[in-house]
Amino acid sequence: MKPTAPGEPELRQDPFTRSWVVIAPERDRRPQSAAPTAASASARSSRDPGCPFCPGNEERTPGELWRTPAPDRAAWAVRVVPNRFPILAPGDGPAPRHVTGPFVSAAGTGAHEVVIETPRHDLDLPDLDDTAVAAVLGAYRARARALRRIQPGLVLPFRNHGAAAGTSLMHPHSQIIAAPVVPLRYRHLFDTARAYYDDRGTCLYSDVADAELASGERVLADDGRVLAFAPYASSVPFETWLVPRPHQASFADASDETLAGTARLLRRVLGALRGALGDVAYNYVLVSAPNGEEGTAYFSWHLRILPRITTAAGFELGTGIAVNPVPPEQAAARLRTSLAEPPGSG
Amino acid sequence: MKPTAPGEPELRQDPFTRSWVVIAPERDRRPQSAAPTAASASARSSRDPGCPFCPGNEERTPGELWRTPAPDRAAWAVRVVPNRFPILAPGDGPAPRHVTGPFVSAAGTGAHEVVIETPRHDLDLPDLDDTAVAAVLGAYRARARALRRIQPGLVLPFRNHGAAAGTSLMHPHSQIIAAPVVPLRYRHLFDTARAYYDDRGTCLYSDVADAELASGERVLADDGRVLAFAPYASSVPFETWLVPRPHQASFADASDETLAGTARLLRRVLGALRGALGDVAYNYVLVSAPNGEEGTAYFSWHLRILPRITTAAGFELGTGIAVNPVPPEQAAARLRTSLAEPPGSG
Repeated sequence: MKPTAPGEPELRQDPFTRSWVVIAPERDRRPQSAAPTAASASARSSRDPGCPFCPGNEERTPGELWRTPAPDRAAWAVRVVPNRFPILAPGDGPAPRHVTGPFVSAAGTGAHEVVIETPRHDLDLPDLDDTAVAAVLGAYRARARALRRIQPGLVLPFRNHGAAAGTSLMHPHSQIIAAPVVPLRYRHLFDTARAYYDDRGTCLYSDVADAELASGERVLADDGRVLAFAPYASSVPFETWLVPRPHQASFADASDETLAGTARLLRRVLGALRGALGDVAYNYVLVSAPNGEEGTAYFSWHLRILPRITTAAGFELGTGIAVNPVPPEQAAARLRTSLAEPPGSG
Repeated sequence: MKPTAPGEPELRQDPFTRSWVVIAPERDRRPQSAAPTAASASARSSRDPGCPFCPGNEERTPGELWRTPAPDRAAWAVRVVPNRFPILAPGDGPAPRHVTGPFVSAAGTGAHEVVIETPRHDLDLPDLDDTAVAAVLGAYRARARALRRIQPGLVLPFRNHGAAAGTSLMHPHSQIIAAPVVPLRYRHLFDTARAYYDDRGTCLYSDVADAELASGERVLADDGRVLAFAPYASSVPFETWLVPRPHQASFADASDETLAGTARLLRRVLGALRGALGDVAYNYVLVSAPNGEEGTAYFSWHLRILPRITTAAGFELGTGIAVNPVPPEQAAARLRTSLAEPPGSG
């Protein structure tokens, strides 16, 4: 029950909202080699000798946690390694709370991993083939299955693309964080979905997917297993969701077929985004039920793509009300057009 | 009960969180004259003939809503005018909901005003004297008193400083938005404070202020009426709060003495921020109780200053958990040092 040592990450609960904040002093030291511009030499080369994620430099990322074998002569297709500048310090199990007057804290432990998506330094997810993107999602699923057994909160795979989305290294990669607490945002999603389930007897996510399919005006693509659409209350321009049908609470439990369908759709949607808007910054997050609540009938995992082309200002920060200048119906129409174009035609 | 016309702002409720989003197509058309750099001519001149907020150009901002007379020979000290590119279209009163399947919307009406803080084009808030800053806060209070009578949701004065904080015009100004809905974030703040009040019988905001004063490690300044501190769970580096003592639910009800004390402290804190970090981008938001709930014993208005020097990435967006690399104790120590230095010495 000792308090966190100086320099170690610490979880603190905001007494006014009960939201958690990570105070992570070490994060200030990470390399700030922002993504180079497309014109730089490093961006054009399939391998960068200075890049820790490139083949041949595997010793610079020790403690490999997962490796997908390569279908060709390459050493690997996907690797998962510990993040050297973790938001949460390595550590398993529950996080005991320290209470001092109105203040609550816990040690900032958990897992923070890097998913090296491809040996190729110069490609992006839409440039890979369906099998390679499925291997990335397969790594998410494998690590989520392992991590949810030892972390009491959540497992979140996510991707930051472009400097405006917080990328600090260029080689294609995503990240996975497992945290010992359940964030307030998740409690909200759950409370809302549970109240809906109690009132209507159906899953909110499935009902929204059905409503989207019925109207069609915000649908991007549907392969029968996974639906891609612009959400009705999109918080940013060109926000896009992928949801499985039928719904399933945790991505860790996705079948191979659903995983492959998600990979195909993700690759196409990211390609359409690039075709419509150019190489814009975005984040995507793969939200599942909190660990231990995967059996619930009223929740669904969803992959949320959030382009970073607007800046939140005072009104948004003060109220939490997002201001989105692009109606999702217009965004969906533009992305549908882009989806219909052959790759490379943009 | 007619649906919103195309092009008009619309409030949509996210079915998964019950948060509101404003779909505001007209916002895309506003001028994107980002703040010029300090080296530009416009930044050095006390008056810019092309600036709609400068004296002599008053006819370019019609429908003046408030004017504070100038103490000197100038025409005015502070003006409040309608925003020409409003997030919410002008309109009073409740916002009837339109329900279509799982989707809920309302017309995006309310008030969006601009507070022209000084006739001087080239100054910033810390450069003004205490009386001039008090006049700015006095305009917030006057408009909040008027708007809360006709808008059922909230009144939020806020300030965007610097391009990274969403500023689109350079002349010193802040904004006020009155909305017809109460955002989820406010419901949260209220639920948390009310549960605390029911459990302990005291106001959470006052108890936190007392705890901060007792420890002192996060306190920036205290004048007996208003306390400035770095919050325990600061969501961004150098986040700073100003709270009144004793607590008061709505800034619209602040006394002249509290208003003057807040102005003095705000000016000093913004000056200390500039002294410590340079002219960084920031937002501040002045949060009060929702309209009609100003009598509650368990809430307090607070002015929250949020420097924009870090970028939220996937983990933050997916979980709502902020990652802050600067412990608030360190931030407070640095700002205290800066506060102690004479103005202009940085």
